[in-house]
Amino acid sequence: MKKVPRALRLVGCLCCTALVAGPRVAPADEMVIFDHKAELPPDGREFNHACPGYRPADGQGGRGISGGGAVVEGELRPSSDTPTHLALYRAFEAIGGVAHTHSLYATAWAQAQRDIPPLGTTHADHFAGAIPCTRPLKAGEIAAEYEANTGKVIVERLAGCNPLHFPAALVACHRPFAWGLSPEHAVENAAAVERIARLASETIRVEPYPRAIHPALLKKHFLRKHGPNSYYGQDGQTKS
Amino acid sequence: MKKVPRALRLVGCLCCTALVAGPRVAPADEMVIFDHKAELPPDGREFNHACPGYRPADGQGGRGISGGGAVVEGELRPSSDTPTHLALYRAFEAIGGVAHTHSLYATAWAQAQRDIPPLGTTHADHFAGAIPCTRPLKAGEIAAEYEANTGKVIVERLAGCNPLHFPAALVACHRPFAWGLSPEHAVENAAAVERIARLASETIRVEPYPRAIHPALLKKHFLRKHGPNSYYGQDGQTKS
Amino acid sequence: MKKVPRALRLVGCLCCTALVAGPRVAPADEMVIFDHKAELPPDGREFNHACPGYRPADGQGGRGISGGGAVVEGELRPSSDTPTHLALYRAFEAIGGVAHTHSLYATAWAQAQRDIPPLGTTHADHFAGAIPCTRPLKAGEIAAEYEANTGKVIVERLAGCNPLHFPAALVACHRPFAWGLSPEHAVENAAAVERIARLASETIRVEPYPRAIHPALLKKHFLRKHGPNSYYGQDGQTKS
Amino acid sequence: MKKVPRALRLVGCLCCTALVAGPRVAPADEMVIFDHKAELPPDGREFNHACPGYRPADGQGGRGISGGGAVVEGELRPSSDTPTHLALYRAFEAIGGVAHTHSLYATAWAQAQRDIPPLGTTHADHFAGAIPCTRPLKAGEIAAEYEANTGKVIVERLAGCNPLHFPAALVACHRPFAWGLSPEHAVENAAAVERIARLASETIRVEPYPRAIHPALLKKHFLRKHGPNSYYGQDGQTKS
Repeated sequence: MKKVPRALRLVGCLCCTALVAGPRVAPADEMVIFDHKAELPPDGREFNHACPGYRPADGQGGRGISGGGAVVEGELRPSSDTPTHLALYRAFEAIGGVAHTHSLYATAWAQAQRDIPPLGTTHADHFAGAIPCTRPLKAGEIAAEYEANTGKVIVERLAGCNPLHFPAALVACHRPFAWGLSPEHAVENAAAVERIARLASETIRVEPYPRAIHPALLKKHFLRKHGPNSYYGQDGQTKS
Repeated sequence: MKKVPRALRLVGCLCCTALVAGPRVAPADEMVIFDHKAELPPDGREFNHACPGYRPADGQGGRGISGGGAVVEGELRPSSDTPTHLALYRAFEAIGGVAHTHSLYATAWAQAQRDIPPLGTTHADHFAGAIPCTRPLKAGEIAAEYEANTGKVIVERLAGCNPLHFPAALVACHRPFAWGLSPEHAVENAAAVERIARLASETIRVEPYPRAIHPALLKKHFLRKHGPNSYYGQDGQTKS
Repeated sequence: MKKVPRALRLVGCLCCTALVAGPRVAPADEMVIFDHKAELPPDGREFNHACPGYRPADGQGGRGISGGGAVVEGELRPSSDTPTHLALYRAFEAIGGVAHTHSLYATAWAQAQRDIPPLGTTHADHFAGAIPCTRPLKAGEIAAEYEANTGKVIVERLAGCNPLHFPAALVACHRPFAWGLSPEHAVENAAAVERIARLASETIRVEPYPRAIHPALLKKHFLRKHGPNSYYGQDGQTKS
Repeated sequence: MKKVPRALRLVGCLCCTALVAGPRVAPADEMVIFDHKAELPPDGREFNHACPGYRPADGQGGRGISGGGAVVEGELRPSSDTPTHLALYRAFEAIGGVAHTHSLYATAWAQAQRDIPPLGTTHADHFAGAIPCTRPLKAGEIAAEYEANTGKVIVERLAGCNPLHFPAALVACHRPFAWGLSPEHAVENAAAVERIARLASETIRVEPYPRAIHPALLKKHFLRKHGPNSYYGQDGQTKS
């Protein structure tokens, strides 16, 4: 990851984890993730510290965390959001990275407690349908294991969906979470959610009740980039 | 082209083609276009790689493509959007460049599936009327020859219009395409569409049902810059 | 003028004129204005070429223009908007500079054809009441002497107002014009209009029918900065 | 304070005061505050002159002001807003810094004369409930002691609230004021208000009547950062 995705430049802060050893190769309590938080430069300069592969070379601020939540590498306390990430790694077998941000437009949709409907091809290039918003947490879910329950409602909402076809969700009244095959993909998907959220906000300003994209066009664009017969981009180069 | 037009600085990516040999001087299957894609710097620095005349001196990333879609120069696969551009070159005899972007506000109007009405002189400086939005593609048009059909619905929508008086269109649920006498003009028109779309969005926020500009004022401004008796700017210098 | 006013940084282009000799000291046809157009740097760097006092030291792009519209100094054609500026200098005896821009939010209010109501103290710091919007020009006024008539409808709208208490107006379907004692004040007022327009747009998004500011508070803030007993800022330093 | 908080970068100007000796240790008329005003760089560069602890090393532009309003250090006239700050220091015993800005979105909510409702966890990370908006001042309050009365309506509105749990307020038709244990906290809270105001504006664009955050979630997030059992961030490090 050489440059901050453009849509995230104003986000300010990015939390990203990478799976080092995970449920696919070990029981859940042997899972280890690597956690990194970065302040993003707003001006497009390169940054090297978020999701630098799996471990930052200089070890700055990174932590290894076991599936049980214990720090197994590094000296800092784990992020309070670690249990949310762990819940996603446990539930979504294919993923290798999770990222969350406070990005403006995606957070606004989360606060509005609304799915982002698929309104155009920019959306369809990244998601196979609406970007789902979870239900609000209940009082009991807030009182105990709040962060783990945040992961739980995401997993609940994604039930029956391929998490690589729906690589992000909005947590009601909270913010977006994104994931992907690698931490780099997770960050790119976090940027895509922000871009798509902003586009949707600007679209409903022009037309409050827009017609959704034709299902065939949604499928066409998604598969053009993500399907087995994808033909977008250069050979050996996958977009997002 | 020395500087990124201001309205495009946040666009991120610009796809632009130039006609090298075209329908005006050769049968359609002898047409050759030159294709270039550039990441735009967000801070106003100069950039040299999009639409650098007809061929970039260093050949970076450019491709020559025949009217049949085959690559005749360069090693990269042609952009998946090439058939859209080819359809425009075939239909609009006067044009020498085509550009498309994912610019935010113009894409929002495309997603809203609405023409951008002429609300003021900024609009009238560039377009002789509303910026047209195409109809959505039908299932069959999406299933086969999707990109060529994207060009087809633009051409269909422009029927009866001078493409130099309406140098851009919005493709429903997709994004804007712009064109012009040269690739430089195409890029300038892509910037104008974004600027005009943003102004229109801000206008309808203030007044949801604004009165359109007086037809005489629309014509006055358009012809002041584009007509045979244009008197705007310095001698020998044409604005957009 | 050392720095671009913040609100104008994204404007792109600023046209500004300075009165060299004017109606206060000479018959109208002996009035001379100095005209300068500048591309504004978007990043806050200083710029030296717009309104550099009265004549740019290096003479770049500047023109002296008589009250009759003839160029009396410099080699470039006068701006097509010169007759609008001349009309304002003729009507508003106290002013020494005029500036116009295409700034986004003020232009949106002009396109919406609405006065900007005084909603808060930021507005009241610069204007003694609503920022007026002119009526649209009639067909005959567009057909002949269009630019001079643009000035005429501004003057008509300001009838009975002190132009230093209402140092800007929106021309319906066109854009804002601002003026002031000097060209520097004109540019500052152009920036104030943009700032106030944006604030008003964001206010009506939150509350579509906001209550206007209390007339006593409007007067208090305006006179705190502009009245004979102003007490804002340091001695000998006038704000805007 | 090493860097401008991101949300304030476009604010332009920040006024901040620090309590040097105050009501907690001396009668009100022996209170001394230190006043500093800074133009904020828009590009994220560090700045050293606003709230530099208590006194800028180079003394640039700073003033010491007694509780009676007299300048006891420095040569410049006190800011016209000083009486507002003094009123807050007198009423809120725990605070050590006050900051006010003209930040865009918070000012828009002030002009709309509406409290900012708690719509999500970003809000809850900083405020224990809605960000309160004062009533408009009455004619008599504007005519005499206007700036002191501005402080009075803030104090009136905060009645019964812990000012450290509600560290900012909007003054109707005017702008936001923020405070905190130190001037650094006051500036961070001014930035939080702007960020939260913008998020709320974007949320109501998507959903005009959003459901407020669950009271348990509001409390959870506020106490996670601010309560005696806070567990957010590293040991010995307090967030905002």
